[in-house]
Amino acid sequence: MATAADITHIACVVYPGYDALDLAGALEPLTMLSSNVPFQFYVVGPSLEPVTTKVNASVVKTVSPSFGQSIAPTHTYDNPPEKIDFLIIPGGMMFLDPIERQQPTIDFVKKTYPKVKYVLSVCTGSVILAQAGILDGKRATSNKACWAWVMENCPNVNWVAKARWVVDGNVWTTSGVAAGMDGMFAWITQIYGEAAATVAANVIEYDRHTDASWDPFSDAWRTTDPDHGKSVQPKFTE
Amino acid sequence: MATAADITHIACVVYPGYDALDLAGALEPLTMLSSNVPFQFYVVGPSLEPVTTKVNASVVKTVSPSFGQSIAPTHTYDNPPEKIDFLIIPGGMMFLDPIERQQPTIDFVKKTYPKVKYVLSVCTGSVILAQAGILDGKRATSNKACWAWVMENCPNVNWVAKARWVVDGNVWTTSGVAAGMDGMFAWITQIYGEAAATVAANVIEYDRHTDASWDPFSDAWRTTDPDHGKSVQPKFTE
Repeated sequence: MATAADITHIACVVYPGYDALDLAGALEPLTMLSSNVPFQFYVVGPSLEPVTTKVNASVVKTVSPSFGQSIAPTHTYDNPPEKIDFLIIPGGMMFLDPIERQQPTIDFVKKTYPKVKYVLSVCTGSVILAQAGILDGKRATSNKACWAWVMENCPNVNWVAKARWVVDGNVWTTSGVAAGMDGMFAWITQIYGEAAATVAANVIEYDRHTDASWDPFSDAWRTTDPDHGKSVQPKFTE
Repeated sequence: MATAADITHIACVVYPGYDALDLAGALEPLTMLSSNVPFQFYVVGPSLEPVTTKVNASVVKTVSPSFGQSIAPTHTYDNPPEKIDFLIIPGGMMFLDPIERQQPTIDFVKKTYPKVKYVLSVCTGSVILAQAGILDGKRATSNKACWAWVMENCPNVNWVAKARWVVDGNVWTTSGVAAGMDGMFAWITQIYGEAAATVAANVIEYDRHTDASWDPFSDAWRTTDPDHGKSVQPKFTE
């Protein structure tokens, strides 16, 4: 098991259509922690061009094409940081877009995973891990609002239908979007201790959930229903 | 009181050292809402160069200088969008940096406020509103972890020491970082109704607080203590 001293270089991936809060929520506790832990941090993308959170307007007709922000990578998949101890993978509205569009990210994650100490995915970031083969035979979770799509596209994973986050070896997967904050705080608690997590949570005024099995959204989206997938479809508009 | 039909153009400001989660947390519910409300959205900054969340390394010695991300503005303070109905102002670690550094943002907010229907600040974004004179004589709140600094630098505001968010007229101010999500959900509830807020919260799996007076962080940072400011200093490392 890696310890705090082993974690000095942290990176995230970004790709078109990634979710801004998936990333910012998971990074914020680390930003606070960086007050006393001198992390090196990198943003790795397909190129150095700013990467938009906007979804593919030619595919997705239901989200305002103008709504989103763009982040500037510090490194590229072809020229990544030399050292990555902890890799963070945000999700996005990939269920509204062909998965193949994320192939460069999947390839980078597959290539990088053997070198990292930990990986943490938020939301449908677990689908990128699954497509890279990293979740084969592992327990994992994902966003509950698109559960049928996740299970259908990633059959080799032991998906946990009711979980705020799941840990299997050095792979941490969290449920949808906001769950990334709770998963990251749990990771910080494991590596740096409860006091470090509490200080960070109090500064960012986040009311964290510390029970990995807490998951009312599993109920809201009926992910434990045997007929899930037939009975419940993603519903992103009223 | 403006209604849903009046809100079509939404913008945020970004400036060096703004907090990524302040912004992404407040924007996420709007992103989900944009599934059925065709917002135009803009990111307005000092220039079109990507704006970093990193704090000023020459002033702030306690945060890893490498930790942060950069967002690409769509518009500038000198050449802003023609129409802004709703302006969102993230905070940042301004208490570690001279406020004067934010003067271009303060000037833009001051100039823009008379034209908007609503403004919402997250965390120390309320200090930008205060410096622009917009909170003079108004009730408002801010991050509780740097409460003494907020009160000292913005004496003309009726600061509410215990509040998740505060509404005064068309000005919404929220407490620190994560409180921006609750404040935004409350705003959405008022303008678009409870059902719209619930759908968005279920998709992003956020356990929102719907009581504006809920504020355990006021207790954690003792903001209602008469000796606050003498007895409690910001504490960002263990």
